[in-house]
Amino acid sequence: MAAPIVPLTLEGSYMLHQMMRVRWSDWRRLDPETQTQVLEDAAGTLGLFNPEQTGMYSMLGHKGDLLFVHFRKTLEELNEAQWQLAKSKLWQFLEPASSYTSVVELGLYESTQRIYRLFTERGLEPDTPEWAAALEEELGRQRTAMAPRLFPTIPPQKYICFYPMDRKRGEDKNWYTIPFAERARMMHEHGMVGRKYADYVRQIISGSIGFDDWEWGVDLFAEDPVWFKKLIYEMRFDEVSAVYALFGTFYIGVRTGLPQLVQLMA
Amino acid sequence: MAAPIVPLTLEGSYMLHQMMRVRWSDWRRLDPETQTQVLEDAAGTLGLFNPEQTGMYSMLGHKGDLLFVHFRKTLEELNEAQWQLAKSKLWQFLEPASSYTSVVELGLYESTQRIYRLFTERGLEPDTPEWAAALEEELGRQRTAMAPRLFPTIPPQKYICFYPMDRKRGEDKNWYTIPFAERARMMHEHGMVGRKYADYVRQIISGSIGFDDWEWGVDLFAEDPVWFKKLIYEMRFDEVSAVYALFGTFYIGVRTGLPQLVQLMA
Amino acid sequence: MAAPIVPLTLEGSYMLHQMMRVRWSDWRRLDPETQTQVLEDAAGTLGLFNPEQTGMYSMLGHKGDLLFVHFRKTLEELNEAQWQLAKSKLWQFLEPASSYTSVVELGLYESTQRIYRLFTERGLEPDTPEWAAALEEELGRQRTAMAPRLFPTIPPQKYICFYPMDRKRGEDKNWYTIPFAERARMMHEHGMVGRKYADYVRQIISGSIGFDDWEWGVDLFAEDPVWFKKLIYEMRFDEVSAVYALFGTFYIGVRTGLPQLVQLMA
Amino acid sequence: MAAPIVPLTLEGSYMLHQMMRVRWSDWRRLDPETQTQVLEDAAGTLGLFNPEQTGMYSMLGHKGDLLFVHFRKTLEELNEAQWQLAKSKLWQFLEPASSYTSVVELGLYESTQRIYRLFTERGLEPDTPEWAAALEEELGRQRTAMAPRLFPTIPPQKYICFYPMDRKRGEDKNWYTIPFAERARMMHEHGMVGRKYADYVRQIISGSIGFDDWEWGVDLFAEDPVWFKKLIYEMRFDEVSAVYALFGTFYIGVRTGLPQLVQLMA
Amino acid sequence: MAAPIVPLTLEGSYMLHQMMRVRWSDWRRLDPETQTQVLEDAAGTLGLFNPEQTGMYSMLGHKGDLLFVHFRKTLEELNEAQWQLAKSKLWQFLEPASSYTSVVELGLYESTQRIYRLFTERGLEPDTPEWAAALEEELGRQRTAMAPRLFPTIPPQKYICFYPMDRKRGEDKNWYTIPFAERARMMHEHGMVGRKYADYVRQIISGSIGFDDWEWGVDLFAEDPVWFKKLIYEMRFDEVSAVYALFGTFYIGVRTGLPQLVQLMA
Repeated sequence: MAAPIVPLTLEGSYMLHQMMRVRWSDWRRLDPETQTQVLEDAAGTLGLFNPEQTGMYSMLGHKGDLLFVHFRKTLEELNEAQWQLAKSKLWQFLEPASSYTSVVELGLYESTQRIYRLFTERGLEPDTPEWAAALEEELGRQRTAMAPRLFPTIPPQKYICFYPMDRKRGEDKNWYTIPFAERARMMHEHGMVGRKYADYVRQIISGSIGFDDWEWGVDLFAEDPVWFKKLIYEMRFDEVSAVYALFGTFYIGVRTGLPQLVQLMA
Repeated sequence: MAAPIVPLTLEGSYMLHQMMRVRWSDWRRLDPETQTQVLEDAAGTLGLFNPEQTGMYSMLGHKGDLLFVHFRKTLEELNEAQWQLAKSKLWQFLEPASSYTSVVELGLYESTQRIYRLFTERGLEPDTPEWAAALEEELGRQRTAMAPRLFPTIPPQKYICFYPMDRKRGEDKNWYTIPFAERARMMHEHGMVGRKYADYVRQIISGSIGFDDWEWGVDLFAEDPVWFKKLIYEMRFDEVSAVYALFGTFYIGVRTGLPQLVQLMA
Repeated sequence: MAAPIVPLTLEGSYMLHQMMRVRWSDWRRLDPETQTQVLEDAAGTLGLFNPEQTGMYSMLGHKGDLLFVHFRKTLEELNEAQWQLAKSKLWQFLEPASSYTSVVELGLYESTQRIYRLFTERGLEPDTPEWAAALEEELGRQRTAMAPRLFPTIPPQKYICFYPMDRKRGEDKNWYTIPFAERARMMHEHGMVGRKYADYVRQIISGSIGFDDWEWGVDLFAEDPVWFKKLIYEMRFDEVSAVYALFGTFYIGVRTGLPQLVQLMA
Repeated sequence: MAAPIVPLTLEGSYMLHQMMRVRWSDWRRLDPETQTQVLEDAAGTLGLFNPEQTGMYSMLGHKGDLLFVHFRKTLEELNEAQWQLAKSKLWQFLEPASSYTSVVELGLYESTQRIYRLFTERGLEPDTPEWAAALEEELGRQRTAMAPRLFPTIPPQKYICFYPMDRKRGEDKNWYTIPFAERARMMHEHGMVGRKYADYVRQIISGSIGFDDWEWGVDLFAEDPVWFKKLIYEMRFDEVSAVYALFGTFYIGVRTGLPQLVQLMA
Repeated sequence: MAAPIVPLTLEGSYMLHQMMRVRWSDWRRLDPETQTQVLEDAAGTLGLFNPEQTGMYSMLGHKGDLLFVHFRKTLEELNEAQWQLAKSKLWQFLEPASSYTSVVELGLYESTQRIYRLFTERGLEPDTPEWAAALEEELGRQRTAMAPRLFPTIPPQKYICFYPMDRKRGEDKNWYTIPFAERARMMHEHGMVGRKYADYVRQIISGSIGFDDWEWGVDLFAEDPVWFKKLIYEMRFDEVSAVYALFGTFYIGVRTGLPQLVQLMA
């Protein structure tokens, strides 16, 4: 059996989603002045963060009250942001309900085919230093071109939808044993649906193999949440989703900021 | 492969179900006067809500003590209602056991077929601006006609049954890969069973793809709970349920109001 | 496809199982006098209940310490019993570990066949008012005859075993798509095994479709718990259990009363 | 279809495994003298138990800190032991992480075949009083002969490994629909592997159908824990394990006693 | 059926992973001096450990705040380390989120084939004392040669990735029923991918059959976490992973020490 073709990927910012629940019984025992102090202290900590790199959302339902989304250049910086928040006074009144660790990823299904064909035409052979050098050069070029998508800032849209997902490895239907060309075709059709909604929904895909319990995280941003439902419902009929997608928990929130938080909690 | 046909849907009110558990040990430590104050404070908060938009149920079993069902025009208003309740003193003595976020949805399986045929006869082509405009006009007409069903008020019946559900995407039996006409036929048969129970059971279907962990939420309302069992048992033999339905947790409750709550808790 | 035949059922008492865990650390902090007061208060509340309608069991293992089994005429009365207990002082020292809501059910697989044949011979047609009236008359007659089994009292046996179950709806093996005659044959064989153990094990079957997360609840009562194992093991080889049964959590307990409880806890 | 043959079993002592977690934050708040008092009180309670009937193990990992294994003649005595421990002062600083309820069981796959053949040769017929009487006589004889294995004492070995297991009832691979002779052959091969390890690993099998969530519990005891891994790994390639075994949580511990516990906790 | 061939393995250090969560609300209630005392006390306890045998990592996300990785010669020593930590004052402010118990393992798929062939050529027969003696001699030789890999020290790399895994035993795709030569071929291909990443990722495989809930634990160490993703993604297309691997929870952390911990927590 020929070695299976692994799609090339580009990686950008590391991402951490933190779903936090307010410990209402402890919080309500504080007098209003202490509440104000705690919120000011939180404001101080959050003020240390670049608002383009850390977004805050008010969540619907019991899966959490607040969702923090962080983008950082390295996993270590993400970890530092996490400890900084944990040391703020507000954290004493929050508890982690869930989280997700990943890295912004661009899957290059189409380029992979093109590059492999090109390199083969040039006479390069896989698993040789020449192939590796040519590949690194090519990926470097794409990394530069894609920088704005690889290192995004918190999008301005009012609503966020986040969910993790896997490609199925069932006994009969197994994404990882399908020929590359088949996978590329299905990913292309899938992308076409996404493109139809480009005016309404901003997507950020992150990879989490080795970092968290699912293979990818999907963040969607929109001004009207009905687009989340329309986009995902239409995609569910795509071959790649209908047959090969497994979905984790869905989280939905409304963008908020410290002034609103003070109003919500005080 | 021709692109699969996605059934048209109409969306109405956003819905939030909140299953709350009473923290009895904390509650029992309060003296009767403080209990009264807390319940009066809750009455104040709930009094701000339109009783047609927020219903309260006393739940059976350990899945929660109180179930709040909210209808709002937008997801943001739902989120606001949630924070208002969280700030009431009563919330200090409740904890979220579960929740469900969705939007009232009418699935137009039959209209989809009719509309697509009609538009094709008129010479319109899918994915063109003309098709989109004609569709938006058609859906707008239906939205107006269906407004009472899209924006329901809390039904008057004594009992509620709520459960979320999915359509199966198994390795062999996969709803999302079945031709549209097959799906429409099965949905029609399914609807026929529902109609037989129309005098006894009121149904509100909400869509939750992108909003919560299952694809749909089902709320049933009846004066006698035995009808829930009879309806769902008969439906379980329908092809669409027998083969393609996956069910989540079932919640059942008895309609209650603040006066009764005061009596129950004080 | 002809509409599938749904087996007729008779419903009796509503049932609530409450699995409660003692909060030992809080309980042990009470001085003996307060413990006595709390237990006397619980005795008062439980004394309001008909002992034939509410049974109490001491559970094995970590799934709970006390199991309350309630029979009531309506779901609303069950709900009231639940709130009454919740208001007793003892409840401050208990927490709900699990619960199950259902209604005593007699499945009439054999009568269904007989009745349908009889009605057809009489020239009645399904889904007509005549059929419905004849059926209601027939079921009414059976409900009267079966009243002692539909509205049972707490059995006197020393041990209880409770578990919920489903009929499988697998991709290949699906109970709900099997012809009625096949289902009736398998249910008959299954019943034969139960009958062999009738002297040793009392069974109460309750239906919970629409009420709780599984389709049925099974309560077994015996003087010697080894009969639970022997009965269920033998049944596991029945076609209907081997192929089509899915089981939930098993709970086992020893019958107890307030005097014993005082002795156990004080 | 001929009625399937159910293997005969012999039952002995009832068993309860209690996996308990220390509430470190509460425990650490005690002064050393109170800690000593609590441990002395626990020593008093445990001193009431026959050390051959109750063993204590220090567990690895987060699944619990202490594992109590109890053997008793009846389920009621097990329940009493449980309440006695719950009333000791130490229990205020422990919480149940898990538990398992079962009864020591010897599965007589080979005798079943022999007995059925013998009885048939004698002209006895299944499901007759004569057959039942002859069977009871035969089982009584075996029960006496097997008494030491049916009513074991806590083995002296240093390490314990406990896990529950099921036989698979998959859509295609289903243990309970396989002919008896096939099952007997696979069980025989399985037993042969166990016998190879008899010098290193002591096995106690208990049945838990009707008592707990899995069908059997397996306790292994050894002086060197590597034998647990070697035995179970080799068995995993047996047909009966490879194809038909489903495993629950694995617990592992080191035998300990009260003096060591005092040293560990004080 | 010939007895299946079980791959030979070598065992080394016992391993315990402890994922601990900080109880922020309790910790924040301490004044700075007490916090310092608690951290000094923890430093004292950790100072008793050989730093090559116990590593500490700061975790990403809600699955824990601190990850301790211990290597010890015996399971009993691991258990002792666990109790020593539990008695440190810091433990009062931590709670166990998860853990994993295993033993460093080298799977000898290739040697197994070679040895079995060699022994057969020498005229030895399986399951004889001669075979066992020759095997023990051979394994002893390999154990000595492999000692550095069997008894590793905490690797110096900055990032850790840990996850447990199983080989699938599906109804159709079942690792344990595949002929040895097939398994050996797939393991060889799998190893080839690992070798491509040897400069970037250090792997430690540990076996946990009989010790914990999955069959193996995988620890990866790297200076750049992106290599975890690249390695595991490429492996996911290997036949042995694509078809036969089941993965548990993924944990990721940044190496830390006591000085950094003091800085993070104080």
